[in-house]
Amino acid sequence: MKLNKENFPHEIKIVEVGPRDGLQNEKKVLELEDKKEFINLLSKTGLKTIEVTSFVSPKAIPQMADSASLYSSLNINDIDLPCLVPNLRGFENAMSCGVKEIALFSATSDEFTKKNINCTVDESFDRMSEVAKEAKLKNIKMRGYVSTAFGCPYAGLMDKESLLKVVQRFLDLGVYEVSIGDTIGVAAPSQVHEYLEYLSQHIDMSKIAMHFHDTRGLALTNILVSMEFGIKVFDSSVGGLGGCPYAKGASGNVATEDVLYLMDGLGIKTNVDLDKVVAASKYILDKLGKKSPSKFFNAYINSGY
Amino acid sequence: MKLNKENFPHEIKIVEVGPRDGLQNEKKVLELEDKKEFINLLSKTGLKTIEVTSFVSPKAIPQMADSASLYSSLNINDIDLPCLVPNLRGFENAMSCGVKEIALFSATSDEFTKKNINCTVDESFDRMSEVAKEAKLKNIKMRGYVSTAFGCPYAGLMDKESLLKVVQRFLDLGVYEVSIGDTIGVAAPSQVHEYLEYLSQHIDMSKIAMHFHDTRGLALTNILVSMEFGIKVFDSSVGGLGGCPYAKGASGNVATEDVLYLMDGLGIKTNVDLDKVVAASKYILDKLGKKSPSKFFNAYINSGY
Repeated sequence: MKLNKENFPHEIKIVEVGPRDGLQNEKKVLELEDKKEFINLLSKTGLKTIEVTSFVSPKAIPQMADSASLYSSLNINDIDLPCLVPNLRGFENAMSCGVKEIALFSATSDEFTKKNINCTVDESFDRMSEVAKEAKLKNIKMRGYVSTAFGCPYAGLMDKESLLKVVQRFLDLGVYEVSIGDTIGVAAPSQVHEYLEYLSQHIDMSKIAMHFHDTRGLALTNILVSMEFGIKVFDSSVGGLGGCPYAKGASGNVATEDVLYLMDGLGIKTNVDLDKVVAASKYILDKLGKKSPSKFFNAYINSGY
Repeated sequence: MKLNKENFPHEIKIVEVGPRDGLQNEKKVLELEDKKEFINLLSKTGLKTIEVTSFVSPKAIPQMADSASLYSSLNINDIDLPCLVPNLRGFENAMSCGVKEIALFSATSDEFTKKNINCTVDESFDRMSEVAKEAKLKNIKMRGYVSTAFGCPYAGLMDKESLLKVVQRFLDLGVYEVSIGDTIGVAAPSQVHEYLEYLSQHIDMSKIAMHFHDTRGLALTNILVSMEFGIKVFDSSVGGLGGCPYAKGASGNVATEDVLYLMDGLGIKTNVDLDKVVAASKYILDKLGKKSPSKFFNAYINSGY
């Protein structure tokens, strides 16, 4: 273990996924107005990208049923507001609302995609290529998510060759960035190091973002390790919104506050106002009536920064 | 940031401080029998050192009022059971119970020691040298704690020169190990790196242990960084027992489970049985009627390892 400050990035970017990945994993379905205010608060923190919703089946994910009216009600023009779309239909719904950036998703595990979107990984790329074709015609930016990159709740440990293959397929689709997700939060620093070292031998790491879940508390250690490989984009969720569907009661996405506090302590710029982020977290946590799994959030609320 | 596996220790040692540092920061005062069963459970996990109690004023710390009867009731001979002693009187009480190892404590901040033990850092070393003199005559092993090594709740940021000075004074007292404590959990990896790099230029790091609090969620990142400097001993508290008196409702000691899971993921031996540790945590958390701040613990309880 060696910490070479000179190897650190001077600045990182956070992709806030609370309104989508966070809220869709919360039992309670919020009012549109509350989500709108939440996103407005987030839009004033300095965050440059906020994934605001997903255009999916309201039957499958009732938390996102209001995606069209929510997106249309937003009046935010200075930052990116990507929306998740699972297929051509979702894409068309997103387009009808004026969505300018989309997020596509697959995984490294067929067992996972079968249970999650009822198709194999190959079939998911068939679906996504239809969407990608249309998106390119409309000059819509695309971001890709790889779920179960390190482990799958059904298939167990995943190998790095499968990860490289799926990342490459996303890049071939024309996404500007691939977000690698530790969906069930099982990755440890040595596995992250091994997999990213392998990827870095084959692809341009400036196109890679990391999406860690803090299910077992190792998200920040994994982020530290990721920065060695030139990774400067991390997904996180304010307040640590969103539990883990595969470990009820456990934490999900790493909290944006925790990532900001870590970067702050490392002297790495984020251009995000930590106090404003905590205020946005407090707002939405109160609406959800839940406590934050973020230790920083709790220390801050109880004693100040 | 560079993670060189070959620089990792092959094995680390955990000093379990839950029964003392953990329980003394819990509001609820437990029955002697519950503490005894807790320590017995811990003694079967593979842990080699468990700090079981402190011989302090029962008025000041009612949670430890039963230290003499608790220690005397223990029938554990194969592992070290150090006890904290603040002064000669505490030392004599410990000796009358047959304590074989003691822990002494001071800090880098006069403001802290004045509020905590009503004396300056210098005066605390005067007290401890009286104890150390007696301990040497009786061949009692001594371990030293440095509180507020990185920051003080009253004086703010502490400097590395003060830390070196206090560590050196402990070594001069004849302790076999100095545990450096981030008492209020404010340290970030870059500060830990800077301070340990400085210490390593002046002292033998094989005599240093790190005692991190996870108040703001950075304990594991700080442990990762510490291992670069040859540090192989870490204090932790099962279940993350013990809050933070300086940030009510916040986390205190890093959870033993979290450290074990990190080491497991790094392929570093601990010789401690994680399942048995979780069982001991569950036992004492139930007695305290509180939830664990350990994300690993919660994921484990809800979904298994």
